[in-house]
Amino acid sequence: MKFINEMREGEKAAGIYLCKHKQAAVTKNGKSYENVILQDKTGTLDAKIWEPNSLGIDDFEVLDYIDVIGDITSFQGSLQVSIKRVRKAKEGEYDPGNYLPVSEKNVENMYQEILEYIQSIKNPYLQKLLKIYYVEDNEFIKAFKNHSAAKTVHHGFVGGLLEHTLSLTKLCEYYTKSYSILNRDLLLTAAIFHDIGKTKELSAFPANDYTDEGQLLGHIVMGAEMIHDGAKKIPDFPETLENELKHCILAHHGELEYGSPKKPALAEAVALSLADNTDAKMQTLTELFAAAKRPNEWLGYNRLFESNIRKTDC
Amino acid sequence: MKFINEMREGEKAAGIYLCKHKQAAVTKNGKSYENVILQDKTGTLDAKIWEPNSLGIDDFEVLDYIDVIGDITSFQGSLQVSIKRVRKAKEGEYDPGNYLPVSEKNVENMYQEILEYIQSIKNPYLQKLLKIYYVEDNEFIKAFKNHSAAKTVHHGFVGGLLEHTLSLTKLCEYYTKSYSILNRDLLLTAAIFHDIGKTKELSAFPANDYTDEGQLLGHIVMGAEMIHDGAKKIPDFPETLENELKHCILAHHGELEYGSPKKPALAEAVALSLADNTDAKMQTLTELFAAAKRPNEWLGYNRLFESNIRKTDC
Amino acid sequence: MKFINEMREGEKAAGIYLCKHKQAAVTKNGKSYENVILQDKTGTLDAKIWEPNSLGIDDFEVLDYIDVIGDITSFQGSLQVSIKRVRKAKEGEYDPGNYLPVSEKNVENMYQEILEYIQSIKNPYLQKLLKIYYVEDNEFIKAFKNHSAAKTVHHGFVGGLLEHTLSLTKLCEYYTKSYSILNRDLLLTAAIFHDIGKTKELSAFPANDYTDEGQLLGHIVMGAEMIHDGAKKIPDFPETLENELKHCILAHHGELEYGSPKKPALAEAVALSLADNTDAKMQTLTELFAAAKRPNEWLGYNRLFESNIRKTDC
Amino acid sequence: MKFINEMREGEKAAGIYLCKHKQAAVTKNGKSYENVILQDKTGTLDAKIWEPNSLGIDDFEVLDYIDVIGDITSFQGSLQVSIKRVRKAKEGEYDPGNYLPVSEKNVENMYQEILEYIQSIKNPYLQKLLKIYYVEDNEFIKAFKNHSAAKTVHHGFVGGLLEHTLSLTKLCEYYTKSYSILNRDLLLTAAIFHDIGKTKELSAFPANDYTDEGQLLGHIVMGAEMIHDGAKKIPDFPETLENELKHCILAHHGELEYGSPKKPALAEAVALSLADNTDAKMQTLTELFAAAKRPNEWLGYNRLFESNIRKTDC
Amino acid sequence: MKFINEMREGEKAAGIYLCKHKQAAVTKNGKSYENVILQDKTGTLDAKIWEPNSLGIDDFEVLDYIDVIGDITSFQGSLQVSIKRVRKAKEGEYDPGNYLPVSEKNVENMYQEILEYIQSIKNPYLQKLLKIYYVEDNEFIKAFKNHSAAKTVHHGFVGGLLEHTLSLTKLCEYYTKSYSILNRDLLLTAAIFHDIGKTKELSAFPANDYTDEGQLLGHIVMGAEMIHDGAKKIPDFPETLENELKHCILAHHGELEYGSPKKPALAEAVALSLADNTDAKMQTLTELFAAAKRPNEWLGYNRLFESNIRKTDC
Amino acid sequence: MKFINEMREGEKAAGIYLCKHKQAAVTKNGKSYENVILQDKTGTLDAKIWEPNSLGIDDFEVLDYIDVIGDITSFQGSLQVSIKRVRKAKEGEYDPGNYLPVSEKNVENMYQEILEYIQSIKNPYLQKLLKIYYVEDNEFIKAFKNHSAAKTVHHGFVGGLLEHTLSLTKLCEYYTKSYSILNRDLLLTAAIFHDIGKTKELSAFPANDYTDEGQLLGHIVMGAEMIHDGAKKIPDFPETLENELKHCILAHHGELEYGSPKKPALAEAVALSLADNTDAKMQTLTELFAAAKRPNEWLGYNRLFESNIRKTDC
Repeated sequence: MKFINEMREGEKAAGIYLCKHKQAAVTKNGKSYENVILQDKTGTLDAKIWEPNSLGIDDFEVLDYIDVIGDITSFQGSLQVSIKRVRKAKEGEYDPGNYLPVSEKNVENMYQEILEYIQSIKNPYLQKLLKIYYVEDNEFIKAFKNHSAAKTVHHGFVGGLLEHTLSLTKLCEYYTKSYSILNRDLLLTAAIFHDIGKTKELSAFPANDYTDEGQLLGHIVMGAEMIHDGAKKIPDFPETLENELKHCILAHHGELEYGSPKKPALAEAVALSLADNTDAKMQTLTELFAAAKRPNEWLGYNRLFESNIRKTDC
Repeated sequence: MKFINEMREGEKAAGIYLCKHKQAAVTKNGKSYENVILQDKTGTLDAKIWEPNSLGIDDFEVLDYIDVIGDITSFQGSLQVSIKRVRKAKEGEYDPGNYLPVSEKNVENMYQEILEYIQSIKNPYLQKLLKIYYVEDNEFIKAFKNHSAAKTVHHGFVGGLLEHTLSLTKLCEYYTKSYSILNRDLLLTAAIFHDIGKTKELSAFPANDYTDEGQLLGHIVMGAEMIHDGAKKIPDFPETLENELKHCILAHHGELEYGSPKKPALAEAVALSLADNTDAKMQTLTELFAAAKRPNEWLGYNRLFESNIRKTDC
Repeated sequence: MKFINEMREGEKAAGIYLCKHKQAAVTKNGKSYENVILQDKTGTLDAKIWEPNSLGIDDFEVLDYIDVIGDITSFQGSLQVSIKRVRKAKEGEYDPGNYLPVSEKNVENMYQEILEYIQSIKNPYLQKLLKIYYVEDNEFIKAFKNHSAAKTVHHGFVGGLLEHTLSLTKLCEYYTKSYSILNRDLLLTAAIFHDIGKTKELSAFPANDYTDEGQLLGHIVMGAEMIHDGAKKIPDFPETLENELKHCILAHHGELEYGSPKKPALAEAVALSLADNTDAKMQTLTELFAAAKRPNEWLGYNRLFESNIRKTDC
Repeated sequence: MKFINEMREGEKAAGIYLCKHKQAAVTKNGKSYENVILQDKTGTLDAKIWEPNSLGIDDFEVLDYIDVIGDITSFQGSLQVSIKRVRKAKEGEYDPGNYLPVSEKNVENMYQEILEYIQSIKNPYLQKLLKIYYVEDNEFIKAFKNHSAAKTVHHGFVGGLLEHTLSLTKLCEYYTKSYSILNRDLLLTAAIFHDIGKTKELSAFPANDYTDEGQLLGHIVMGAEMIHDGAKKIPDFPETLENELKHCILAHHGELEYGSPKKPALAEAVALSLADNTDAKMQTLTELFAAAKRPNEWLGYNRLFESNIRKTDC
Repeated sequence: MKFINEMREGEKAAGIYLCKHKQAAVTKNGKSYENVILQDKTGTLDAKIWEPNSLGIDDFEVLDYIDVIGDITSFQGSLQVSIKRVRKAKEGEYDPGNYLPVSEKNVENMYQEILEYIQSIKNPYLQKLLKIYYVEDNEFIKAFKNHSAAKTVHHGFVGGLLEHTLSLTKLCEYYTKSYSILNRDLLLTAAIFHDIGKTKELSAFPANDYTDEGQLLGHIVMGAEMIHDGAKKIPDFPETLENELKHCILAHHGELEYGSPKKPALAEAVALSLADNTDAKMQTLTELFAAAKRPNEWLGYNRLFESNIRKTDC
Repeated sequence: MKFINEMREGEKAAGIYLCKHKQAAVTKNGKSYENVILQDKTGTLDAKIWEPNSLGIDDFEVLDYIDVIGDITSFQGSLQVSIKRVRKAKEGEYDPGNYLPVSEKNVENMYQEILEYIQSIKNPYLQKLLKIYYVEDNEFIKAFKNHSAAKTVHHGFVGGLLEHTLSLTKLCEYYTKSYSILNRDLLLTAAIFHDIGKTKELSAFPANDYTDEGQLLGHIVMGAEMIHDGAKKIPDFPETLENELKHCILAHHGELEYGSPKKPALAEAVALSLADNTDAKMQTLTELFAAAKRPNEWLGYNRLFESNIRKTDC
């Protein structure tokens, strides 16, 4: 099987891919065809079935794994597969791990690092609260390890939520060493918890799309509610501590217009929002630069950075 | 006793008032004196003790009821009491009901109207949720009846939260008759619940100030959490319904920059935010116009309305 | 004749439609064809004439009524008619009332309700001013009944201006009962007059497009000028009253950036802008929800509401 | 008589001044006194009557001319007069021309220049419209010559409206020579008319304050209405020409948030708003720099320019 | 040779054009073709090579001059050339002056006018600084005469930078006559220098695109640096004068959000930013109106003016 | 000598202080007095000379060291010294180091750390450029060690510029370890250079105020110019490298509205602006919290953080 990022114009496509999207259409001239999007862990690719009802074109649905034979062409500067034959693949013919974008880092190792940070929390209430989710709740642990941190922007891959959480937690750890006003237990707990609402705001892969609950409430409020529900299970959890922790979660987007209902009012909340912004921006650049073909190439106007951007030589 | 809004320059002040504020100070010339703010249900008034250590000036604290004798003067266009004698009053010498600003409407009648709206809710889960707070929780009922709806702006008086909630609920009831897309049960439930977080965001009278919890979380998120805690007590409360109701609470300020973590996404959430904005603005004008001395007088630039404002003859 | 909203892919189209738009074009491959937009009261539909010069394709112009035979296909998710035969229809072959979007409510009944509100105005100058337009000016009455309230957004149908005006007037009537600071005569007069400038800002159906005058002045200033011209015809019309009424018209968009040259400075102007905003938003949602196929379906990001939106079950 | 801008700390004040403001007050120590503002054509000055009821302090009202004897002191860096004796002056004792800030330029000469521009307008309708106000309407001519262009900002002096109008008209004349797309008749007519609404928005000197009508409608809409009323008196005044001219008036603040209900849509409207902005900014700087004591001195943060500002050596 | 603005649908295209752009593509049906953009001094035109590998289609590159034979067709309302034969033209077969958009004014005459302004500067340091670039630096002079003032907006043609600089300088000269606070030497020097950074921010024609340096630094800072480097070459150049001149360059966009690192703080800097804004807007309208087909035609919404715009009759 | 932060109401003040400010004034009652601000390294304090011409009150000037005897009182909640005797102190009577706010960290050690970072830069051009300023330019080194990083906000003390630069450089070093896209040489060089313009934008202590040059150009452009001048002294300094470095300096405020003429377009520029923002915010909080009297005390609304803020227990 040829991975999508290895395909070249003029070659043949042959292999099993995840069907991410499928829709009937007609050409300008009135002829029926089908738009398909193929996905594997290296990316996605447009495909067309120009003769939908011809021999060799079997039935299949969105999110089926499909065995495809076709020609790789170029349309308006992008590759495209013209599908000649297609059939639904059977379980066992393919390894699902090949079809989802995944973190380049080892998920299990990253999870262990999170656990070590949890062990280092001295406040017993905060440590217990962390363990309720990260040690005792297997369903949560599974979701947390497999979730992306976003639908379309940075960290949009399996393990992305974990990778972002760990990177941000390390940055917060650095802050606590540089700025003595910071309460390490509170900041690191907030860091580890800051995006847990995303396990419910986005559905799991391969769909990775907003849930009804996510649209209505958002991961910020959902995360604060998870803290609230967890703290209720711990006898005598100090009310002020719960409020400070929830405040950090609520304020971590830094600005009301980014969906935080409160501006950061504690040093730890300020630090968390700075760390989140820093890690999001650096990861976004990392992903953008990975797509650059030449060193020193201007990559075009980017809306997040409100600027044309380019890489320097390292 | 003369109420504060009846005082006139040149008269004597004599009676018992609530001491809202007290602070030692020195004049430009280095002489010690004390700033005091007196309060009764008709308003507040600056007072000065020019001779703090003289005979007849007894000790007292902030939030004590104090028996005052002094001269009413005018300073930069505002009245001011020069206190000659003062002593702490004893319980029984005064009626606490005279010292807090109160709704001009009957609190008990308004509460009964709320209960009637609750009876009219057909969805059993929503009706039960309303009753958990408004019928079964005596501490909440007491707080809800006595709270203001704000520290400084509109409805800043005892019963203000109730008055605002009822007025807004009636407006929402009108909406449901005009716009058939609205789900009456959801909208009226959201209306009755929309500001319950304020019972925790602000402390009770006479302090009526932001709590630590209120500063950290805000009444919007606190209200949604109260819905969440209430729904947990009701078996089989539909998850989507809980989310829709919490969404209405979260979105009721209408804009992210006003502290709502989500923009209204349901028609009921849009309607609730319109009703809240309407009632707040009309009540603010009512309170501003009450202070106008002459018909058709321009009252000066108002920050909420971003305009100089004036009353018309009715 | 099959109405546009009843057409289905794969069927034949056959009937008389209004030609809203017509333009010659060439395909990517250099072949000439024609883009046509068909309209009836249920909506509009793209159509193509792939063989413009073939037999059966007669001449016709924009805004002609045309008798069409063709095939209904689907292109990029939208229906499209491939026109095989077309000829200009003759007067008498069609009922013009079938070709324009119209209010679902009875125009004559709504107009009578407006007249009843006018009768209830006690101030004789304001009542007379209303009658100059709504009772004595037949050309205005005809335009007011037939106009839309907008080119593309809410109430964009025949009778839409009347429907919006009546709904908003009723809401203002409700306000006057809830908020005693409001002068009913002034507010209801302003409500009934608030959008009369639209009878000149937009041309009549079927064009329903901005006029030169509308582009240069806008309906807000044009409406205030109509008030001014009307008041001139009434002896001793009080100057302050005219100014207050014009202020309400000028300020009814509520914000300078929405085209009001003054922010609302009177309670009636504040109320009018709240009512206008409320009715516009609720009607927009009503029209959006009418297009939803499934209950609880997310309808996509909406620019007015700055949110993805969905309907609740009622 | 010593003019206000010639007074020096430590000297005696003795002469007749306009009383711009008068208000009773009490000191921090409870003593009654009176705040007075004196005005002559060179500026205004704070004054105090520390012994309001003493011998030599006669009764007087706001906007009376008063004969004052007192001491010139300095308070927080500003001069202040401590009034020892004061009496109301009689007509004939003073020249009113000495008590209002006036343009440094000759009002009559400036008015003649405006008339010459009016003569140069070739379009007969526009020339006639200009003459209806600037030649035939004596009340208007008197108001136009004596009005300021603003209450507090640039051109806030007698003749200021005329001076600003002439300066801006000359700049527009320059534009028509540089940019051939501009219609000279339309642009110059709009320039001469652009601020005529100010003759009604502000009351005449010495009050120079917003009128009720001005607060409700603003000079932009009032100016457009004056154009409308004037055009009605001219048979066959072309409707499009009236609309274009009113558009220029309506759009001359350039931005909706500055109170223009329409953005400039014609080249002449764009040019007029540029000229207005240019003349306002340069005149504001001229007035600010006139107050500077030393060359190259930084004058402090200025809100209009959003910057600390300073003069260069010329 | 037929210039691009003289081409008509249905005719033959035959002549030499500059190839501004060339890219391989495939049709929706999978067929390879090539997109080409042809340019001459009258504009640009889309062209297609539908049979890239056929006889008569020779090799060529972007920015080659190519001899083309083809058919002129219309696609979606725009003309398009279907290229049948094409070959690279040899030097001598064409006049490069015919292939770039050029100022309608005489470049040499405009340059002489700039020199006259330079001669009129009395301050010897400023005059010397101007001469270092405009008289002594031949490479700069050549670039300045040939550069556009922009990539895509106003003055985007050969000589555009010179034309804009001269027009703005004349407007500043007018200002100095009207507003006596302005230092003429400083303002005119700043005017002549204000956009010199553009000679490095944009590459020369025919590319006329942002340079790497231009993307990183921008013409504002690059211009200030050129002033700095020039002043260094002049003994005893007064430091304050250099700073004032650089300030004018840095602040000439008027607002921080338009890329000026400082708001104008000197009257000359305010005047320069007003002149730049004025000339840019009037020239943009001139170019937009040149494209209008009919008088009084509305040209559609324009983003710079945030309005639909139209021409008046002149 | 008693330091200012050790003074208590009711005690005597006696010792030598720096006179930061001195201005004559009169009381509301017309009596002359003098406002003085005293400064030592622990803060500043208002003082009054109520009897300026009395015995024991000698002459002195702003920025003199003065020997003061007086009473410590409290005015509107702040301490104030009523000066009874004062004389100018002689050199030798005081240690200047006691009179300026200074970094709590060792300046020499911090400077050595900067030098170590410079040694670690591998790119020879960048290292040489750093050494031109930080090793070879003694005047610069002295200024850099003694400067504050701001007039009024964070790091406003002797050594503040150095402390901020070092803290930010360390954070950038951390970034380079976490995010492999970053060019360490470029980022660390930019970090060390980012605020060098402040050595010229602000005058040295004790004045610590904006210079004329600083007002006109700002430290961002001045810093880029210093890079430019330094690079000129190094043969063959790569042009692209100079531009990248200057870009980082120009863009380090992150947003155009904060005075950066370019948004960050390189990953290193993004990282530098994030580090600057992070260090500025954490240091501001550190300074604010140092002033808090009680743990968990709300410190009031802060404009930078747009929130009421409070400390947590650490």
